[in-house]
Amino acid sequence: MGTTQLESVPEPKYWHLRTVLSEALDSEFEVGEILPNERDLAARFGVARATLRQALEQLELEGRLQRRRGVGTTVAPPRVGVAVDTREHAWPGTADDAWQPGDCALAAPPAAVADALETGRDEPVHTVRRLRVSHGRPVAAELLYVPSSSVPGLPAIDAPSGAARARAVLRELQRGALERRESAVELGSAGADDAKELDRLPGAPVLVVTTRYFAEGRTAALSVATYRADTCRLTFGDFGDVEIHHGPQTQAS
Amino acid sequence: MGTTQLESVPEPKYWHLRTVLSEALDSEFEVGEILPNERDLAARFGVARATLRQALEQLELEGRLQRRRGVGTTVAPPRVGVAVDTREHAWPGTADDAWQPGDCALAAPPAAVADALETGRDEPVHTVRRLRVSHGRPVAAELLYVPSSSVPGLPAIDAPSGAARARAVLRELQRGALERRESAVELGSAGADDAKELDRLPGAPVLVVTTRYFAEGRTAALSVATYRADTCRLTFGDFGDVEIHHGPQTQAS
Repeated sequence: MGTTQLESVPEPKYWHLRTVLSEALDSEFEVGEILPNERDLAARFGVARATLRQALEQLELEGRLQRRRGVGTTVAPPRVGVAVDTREHAWPGTADDAWQPGDCALAAPPAAVADALETGRDEPVHTVRRLRVSHGRPVAAELLYVPSSSVPGLPAIDAPSGAARARAVLRELQRGALERRESAVELGSAGADDAKELDRLPGAPVLVVTTRYFAEGRTAALSVATYRADTCRLTFGDFGDVEIHHGPQTQAS
Repeated sequence: MGTTQLESVPEPKYWHLRTVLSEALDSEFEVGEILPNERDLAARFGVARATLRQALEQLELEGRLQRRRGVGTTVAPPRVGVAVDTREHAWPGTADDAWQPGDCALAAPPAAVADALETGRDEPVHTVRRLRVSHGRPVAAELLYVPSSSVPGLPAIDAPSGAARARAVLRELQRGALERRESAVELGSAGADDAKELDRLPGAPVLVVTTRYFAEGRTAALSVATYRADTCRLTFGDFGDVEIHHGPQTQAS
């Protein structure tokens, strides 16, 4: 099963350039420094603009570069470690929760969510929008779907939205007996609402963490959290709320 | 903190097209079906080829489409759930491990790995290459770095490579007392070797899971596992070895 038995895949030109550029970032540039413009870079490395752009996109995907309109391309700081809560028996919204409730609405969820919650496709559920901030910047946006049956004691009030309503839903949810939770991580792209909250353009790559909360043998709530893939690395394990910094070693030039 | 207070971000044309295409995939196409060619699709939706291509790339990133040379663009099956082992006290290579050892070499690791292991930058470490297969297809490739100090009883043999050597390193590693492990997930791109093993082109988006194994107060081994981001969703929690299927609902046309 050695790799030598496998067929050889040719290395694309942009991939080679990416490696060369990556080494140049380590040795010649500091975090936050603005890169020369594309024309100058393409000339320096003797490649076409299209090849250069592919290599830059690659390094952006890997979190090495940031590209912002009006600023240009800068060397990215190391990604921030963001702890994903995997405690078996914790509901969202408990005291040490890293999320801030922002808004709450009663609306029909996407079909896949309705199926997971086993609610009817047109049945409205409480939809809590929460934001997670790290080092003063938004790192993740969440939609937490809670069927009415999971919060039977929730009072019917006149204005069923806003942060106060969100907190009321979370409080009621915590009265139930949580059996277990399951999480999954996959690659996705930011929708328009999430992109707005995360200060990204729609379509930006994100890490989507889906968590199902089980109570009384069924899914009592479902959370879909969207983390910025450019700035975050998700950490799992018994870290508590400690956030650790990782990433490639950066050297002063 | 409601979203309404935030500035509006204009929706790019390709993002709108992606949404329209995504709905068409749900209602008109079956898994595995080949999409019409780009020219016909661009004409049907009244967009430029470049816009269409951006929308297709987006849907590929989200795991909805697969593009393969010589085949064309097909509707992707739902992503496969792949359980990431987070048992606090399990070394790699134990009986229920999902990974198959492929090869082993003694080589100087990348600088960031050497720093994490606190070995010297030129000090060779045992580098075990392992592969993870799910439903008959490779889903992840791993490099496991083990310093000599973590496997003191490893016999010096004539041929220090190959699968047998890999198994010997794992066996020796398991003699140590594991204190805990830490995992992190981030977005990356496949290097040439990983791409080859995963049947992808270099630069394809991957989910990189880094795991540090701590013993005697230091990092005794470090694993860098590269999962195909197009076909995998990583599941965390007490699933044992159960693999569950998720993903958007697909409907027959």
